[in-house]
Amino acid sequence: MRVSAKPPSHDIEFRVRYAESDQMGVVYHANYLVWCEMGRTELIRAVTGRSYADLEGQGIGLAVSELTIRYHGAARYDNLVRVRTTMTEVRSRGVSFEYEISNAETGERLATARTTLVSLDEAGKLVVMPPDVRRLLGDASR
Amino acid sequence: MRVSAKPPSHDIEFRVRYAESDQMGVVYHANYLVWCEMGRTELIRAVTGRSYADLEGQGIGLAVSELTIRYHGAARYDNLVRVRTTMTEVRSRGVSFEYEISNAETGERLATARTTLVSLDEAGKLVVMPPDVRRLLGDASR
Amino acid sequence: MRVSAKPPSHDIEFRVRYAESDQMGVVYHANYLVWCEMGRTELIRAVTGRSYADLEGQGIGLAVSELTIRYHGAARYDNLVRVRTTMTEVRSRGVSFEYEISNAETGERLATARTTLVSLDEAGKLVVMPPDVRRLLGDASR
Amino acid sequence: MRVSAKPPSHDIEFRVRYAESDQMGVVYHANYLVWCEMGRTELIRAVTGRSYADLEGQGIGLAVSELTIRYHGAARYDNLVRVRTTMTEVRSRGVSFEYEISNAETGERLATARTTLVSLDEAGKLVVMPPDVRRLLGDASR
Repeated sequence: MRVSAKPPSHDIEFRVRYAESDQMGVVYHANYLVWCEMGRTELIRAVTGRSYADLEGQGIGLAVSELTIRYHGAARYDNLVRVRTTMTEVRSRGVSFEYEISNAETGERLATARTTLVSLDEAGKLVVMPPDVRRLLGDASR
Repeated sequence: MRVSAKPPSHDIEFRVRYAESDQMGVVYHANYLVWCEMGRTELIRAVTGRSYADLEGQGIGLAVSELTIRYHGAARYDNLVRVRTTMTEVRSRGVSFEYEISNAETGERLATARTTLVSLDEAGKLVVMPPDVRRLLGDASR
Repeated sequence: MRVSAKPPSHDIEFRVRYAESDQMGVVYHANYLVWCEMGRTELIRAVTGRSYADLEGQGIGLAVSELTIRYHGAARYDNLVRVRTTMTEVRSRGVSFEYEISNAETGERLATARTTLVSLDEAGKLVVMPPDVRRLLGDASR
Repeated sequence: MRVSAKPPSHDIEFRVRYAESDQMGVVYHANYLVWCEMGRTELIRAVTGRSYADLEGQGIGLAVSELTIRYHGAARYDNLVRVRTTMTEVRSRGVSFEYEISNAETGERLATARTTLVSLDEAGKLVVMPPDVRRLLGDASR
């Protein structure tokens, strides 16, 4: 992984699904949050070499505790969309991410978002992340 | 038992959500299957006096193994929709349902569907339904 | 006008759908935003006597331009959920809402959210809301 | 023409999204139908050199009129899934497709499906497909 003063970031690209459109002819706003999560999944895989599915298998879950999103433009069916995900903070009990969602063909900025995730055990209680998970994420953001 | 003279049936009504529309201006076709499931949930509650959530808490899950749906019309945002669910068969390892989806205000028939569900344990293996669950469902369809 | 002494608010209640759960056993976080929209739809119907579908038929759309949500608890399949929607501001080119999402049976607070919506014409351009729409909404919040 | 000796088929692969899982720990069954549609979109692009979005822009829509799906296994979060879509029939007023959905890493067959789509104009009326569209699709299946 990259060593940075610069927090780790990762891009994914995919096409908008018909199911994601609404009767306004654009992507329904809540679907952008699903895309943010796809971005997190791939960033975690890229920077830790492990899948989030594996982490969850260890009994640790990261749940979104807060999110903010601003919409600047509209994605449409079949557009090629890019999500750039940046891990902005690793804490003992959570991680924060920022997202820039754009049209990969035109470069138009569509949305920007931030999420805070907290570490929960299987009973849904806030817990400190396992040291190895924290180290994996933390090393990545150093 | 198989099909009774008068299989149990149950109606639910609800309004179409904006999120369920697509850019054709009608409800995206896969969403009708979510509605069928809402119909099953309420039919099971109505005929057994227990929630499907409770049954699942007992370690038994009913998974859709086959479904067929025909679309006759189109539901639109804010339409009041009715789903009539009928339990057509209770077997040792599963249950079958039929659905009639209509516009509750105009009576227009929108879709008809059938689903076969099988009983799975927590490992996803096909199992015989617990006798009390089978009795609850079976008594209802007598 | 801005905020009135007592901004209009409206409650809806509904059961969580199976489709809304995720493998953590709770409602997938993006689905709360669909619920917020259901709350808006019913608040608009309650305070203006007209449906949002009608307003949209007039060629005016309200698109979410910004949203923030904080998760305090978790909704689960079959829970009865209440969404209290409050219209906090009516502007010439938009409307703002706040939401409190809770478990209607236990009273547990699950999430709080705010959304800003802007008025767009059919080409997606920011426009002033038609005077009658603005009056309908504005009168309601007085 | 009807079915050719070797009907055109096309594969897509993608990872299962967290949002697509349900509390049984597997992909919610209705989501497979969204995947079928992604398969259709890419098959149409591959065989006609044009996007379905373009066809729709010409005022012609293909709406699912009937679908059948059988579930043989379960997809899980982060699995790499393959959808093989085959165009089995081109008619004057519609097209039929078959789908085989499998786990791309293990080869396990997850589901098989068939859909019939009909050609609708913007008012939702059944119409003959434009000759050039029919030719594009029909040539592909010869």
